[in-house]
Parts: sequence; structure tokens; C-alpha cells
Amino acid sequence: MYDIIVVGAGPAGISAGIYGVSRGKKVLILEKDEVGGLIGKVSTVTHYAGIIPGETGVTFAQRMKQQALGAGVEIRRETVERVQMQGDVKAVVTSQGQYECKKLILANGSTGRKLGIPGEKELAGKGMGMNAAKHGNLYAGKHVYVVGGADGAVKEALYLASVAKTVTIIHFEPQLGCIAEFREKVKKTPNLRLMLNARLHAVRGTEQVEQLDIRSELDGSVTTIDDVGCGIFVYAGTVPNTQLYTELELQDGYIPVNAWMETQIPGVYAVGDIRVKQVRQVATAVADGAIAAVHACIG
Amino acid sequence: MYDIIVVGAGPAGISAGIYGVSRGKKVLILEKDEVGGLIGKVSTVTHYAGIIPGETGVTFAQRMKQQALGAGVEIRRETVERVQMQGDVKAVVTSQGQYECKKLILANGSTGRKLGIPGEKELAGKGMGMNAAKHGNLYAGKHVYVVGGADGAVKEALYLASVAKTVTIIHFEPQLGCIAEFREKVKKTPNLRLMLNARLHAVRGTEQVEQLDIRSELDGSVTTIDDVGCGIFVYAGTVPNTQLYTELELQDGYIPVNAWMETQIPGVYAVGDIRVKQVRQVATAVADGAIAAVHACIG
Repeated sequence: MYDIIVVGAGPAGISAGIYGVSRGKKVLILEKDEVGGLIGKVSTVTHYAGIIPGETGVTFAQRMKQQALGAGVEIRRETVERVQMQGDVKAVVTSQGQYECKKLILANGSTGRKLGIPGEKELAGKGMGMNAAKHGNLYAGKHVYVVGGADGAVKEALYLASVAKTVTIIHFEPQLGCIAEFREKVKKTPNLRLMLNARLHAVRGTEQVEQLDIRSELDGSVTTIDDVGCGIFVYAGTVPNTQLYTELELQDGYIPVNAWMETQIPGVYAVGDIRVKQVRQVATAVADGAIAAVHACIG
Repeated sequence: MYDIIVVGAGPAGISAGIYGVSRGKKVLILEKDEVGGLIGKVSTVTHYAGIIPGETGVTFAQRMKQQALGAGVEIRRETVERVQMQGDVKAVVTSQGQYECKKLILANGSTGRKLGIPGEKELAGKGMGMNAAKHGNLYAGKHVYVVGGADGAVKEALYLASVAKTVTIIHFEPQLGCIAEFREKVKKTPNLRLMLNARLHAVRGTEQVEQLDIRSELDGSVTTIDDVGCGIFVYAGTVPNTQLYTELELQDGYIPVNAWMETQIPGVYAVGDIRVKQVRQVATAVADGAIAAVHACIG
């Protein structure tokens, strides 16, 4: 029996774990993938106060993991399949077993949205839907395409521009939707160009991407680009990982909480990107985790 | 004319500054002391997700300062004497000049509470009211006393125990009011002892502390301890630095805000320890700053 089980080991979940054990509680974090969540996959962690200059998502995630383990948090790499959230004792069923706890903190975060276009699935990992921080180096001297125009997309495009021969941002709106800092950097990056009012419509190839179809948002015309061996990186928004939580009422797919991060079910909290919130950043995820854990320990 | 002026360069103010400039805004932070606020004075920064193991308040504050300056935040070491918060243009008057801005973010934090006992003022800096991280080394081989039993007090007592000959925690309650992690460490620290149900009642000496009076909370009896050259470190709660903000209605001295960190005056925000909040930690301060700045940039 655990005092607290946290589902998800991104910044929100790790922070909850650290605060939970500091209050003398037995805490288990269940994570289906690597510690770090979405931020563990970025090329650079930016704007988090006190961050080490130029730090990558991987090194940041590693330090968070060591911090949590060193503090006494138990982390298991298991996929949560079912949760039972009602009552004083909650149950979490994973691919490998069943765990019980008094308080449950949902920190599943969100996952990158798929485009749902022809060729996306077939060429996944073969040039399509790559991870900039992890696979960027494979595209040295080649052309890459970044789909998306928000902060996450443009940040990775800027990183890729330091590696690849050229970077093309494909964005469906007439201008980028990112912060001024990134927009200024784009202007100063000669091998980065913008393809605006445009959507990636299809990708073709066998063992690698060979062709891209781009559809104009203005007139619907489709342009085909031949670019054998190019890389395509998709950062077109995210989807909250709330599929398991059918008992909870959602708002646009996100979990509503009160100021203590409590959901409508007593003893169940939601923190980080999975919850309804104004600002989705490492800074706010980490605060959510701290607040939920502090409350879970006194409640 | 600045887009945003931030008063105070602790974690909340620095985070606000970093987010403000990232959105292309001209941001000035005014700080009367060193960058870092209260956390800049602690022996170790604990529980903040991703912190470098064993990091001191001083090195954490230095990195935050470099991060903000590198991002383009302007930081001036000036004492704010008056603010004019109403209207579309706000004015901030300091010891050295006057500045105008569209949005004002109050991040003054809080200050350690004084005990108000005989000898406190006369012996300040001569053994009384010392800073553990800064002055701890001066007490190698000597006896030190820590006044207070909450997290901040016990954390510094644990640090001082690694330096001084003995540490005595003087706390007015029957047990420590700190988190389990620190309570466990206290038990394992042989040169640290607790003086509970006790208050520091007076200190005496000329060029250094020579005597302490301890008053029992149980029977009111006063015990005098002769301890020439000892060090006394006071962590007996904090007081929010809201003295300048007479226009704002306060709750127990703290500034109430909405979910965007806005005060009752449009365009004026309050972040970090100065505001009404549940959990006072670096993690939540940094989130407050991010949220306020993001809103100040779109509002």
C-alpha cells in the first residue's frame, strides 16, 4: 500500500514525488516511457528559472530522475491500464501488476498530435514524425521539414537549422504563432524558411520519405516536393492523455481541478499538462506537482 | 517607458522577467538587494525539480541572474520608494529615479521576522541574527543556536551542524513543525539538540554574544546560558513586504490575486511569497512569475 501513486514521470509527476517523500510518505511513480515526459524530448529547456544554459530535455530529465530516486521516490516503468479512483483506497492496474494507494496524482501529460495524413503511419520512424533532439543529427546536410508554428515547433526548427542543410516550417496560418524571442531568431537563421498558409497533405516513399504533398490553405492547390531522404518533424499541437479517466468530467479533454489540484473525486489530483490550465510550461507543471503533493500529505 | 516593471528579483520576479522578454517585451526588474530573494540566502536549495544536487542559494541566484540578463532583462539595484498603480501608465519611484510602465508585477517576497527581544538590535551582526549560508563558517568549533522549528529553521540547523561544534534548536512548540525529511535528519545528527517549549528571551554581550536567556513556555521560568562567542540564527517566520502597497486590500498582510495573478487593480500583478497562496516554494514562485508575465504580455 502506497500513500501516493503518481501516474506519469514528467516534471509535474516528478515534483509531486519529491514533495511527497519529503513529507515522509511512500510514493510510487508509474511511467510507461522514459522519465521526463514531453520536455524530456525537447532540444533545449528554455525559460525555466535556474535552468543550466543550453540544457537539453534528456539531461534535464536525467537530473530530475536522479533527484527523485535519491529522495526515495520509487519509479517503475509500467503502463497503467486501469484505475479505480473512488473510495479511501484507490487501485492502479498496470501491465505488470496491481498497486493500491490512499491518494492518486494523475500526471500523464499530453502526447503530440498525429496529422492523420496518407503515409504518416507507414513512414513513421523512417523520416516521418521524427524527434529533433534525438534524430536531428541523422539529417546533417539534408533537408528537413517542421510541421507546426507554435513555440514547440519553432524551437525545434531553430535547433534543426543548426544541424540540417535547410529547414522548412510548414504552418497552416498566415504567420507563426510563437513567442517573439523565437520569431526574432527565425529571422536571423538563413537556412530556415517559412511555408505559410500551407498544410502537409501526404508523404510518400518506401524505406524513406521521397515526396511530400503540400496543400495551400488559400486556394486548395497541392504542390509535390521531391526530397528523397528528408526528415519530417511534426509539432502540431498535443492531446491530453486522459483516455483512462472516463469517470472524470473533462473540459475539452482536460481535467478540471481546484486550487489544490483536486479533481471532483476526493483524493484524486491532476497536475501538469493533463489539467485545465492557463500556462503550459515546466514552471507551472512543477508547481502543480508540489501543490498536489503537499495537500495529499496533509489531507 | 517599459512594458513591464517587476519589483523584486527573487525566483518569482526573475521568472516573470524571463517570460516577459521572451514575448518581446521591454522588462525592468528593480531589486534593493542581491538577486535571489530569500532563497538566495539559504544553505541548500531543496525540492525544486531539476535542481543541481547540493546547490546553494547563492549559486542558484547567480544562475538565475545570468539567465535573466542573458535573455535581455534589465536589472537595476535600486530601492523602490513609491508606486503609482492606477491607470494605463504606472509609475515606480526609486531612490535613484522614476520609471514608467504599462504593467507592474509585485514580487517583493517576504523578510525574516525579528524577535523583538532585548539585545537583538544591539548585537545584530555580532553573533545575533546571522545568515547560516554566509556566516556559518565563522562558527566552526563553536556553539550555535537556531531559533525556529519550521522547514527553513531546521534546514539551516542541519547545515550548521556540519560546521559548528553543536547546534541547539530553540522552538516554542512541543515539537518541530518541519517536514518528515528534515525531522529524520535531525534524529541522525548527533551534535544537534532540541530545546522545545522554549523561547529566546534576551541576548547579552558587547562585541559578541555572551549570554542567552531562554524562557520556558511551560512554567515561564528563565534560564541563562553563558556561551561567549556563540552564533544565533533566527528563522522565526517571515513578514510579507507589502508596506508600500497601501492601495491594495490585503489578507493577513498578503496580496490576494486571481488565477492570472492579477490584483484588484488592472495591470498590477502579485507573484511569489507576497501573495495569498497555499504553498510557498521556489516551484510555486517561479510558476507565478511565468503566469503573470504571460498574461501581462497578452492583456
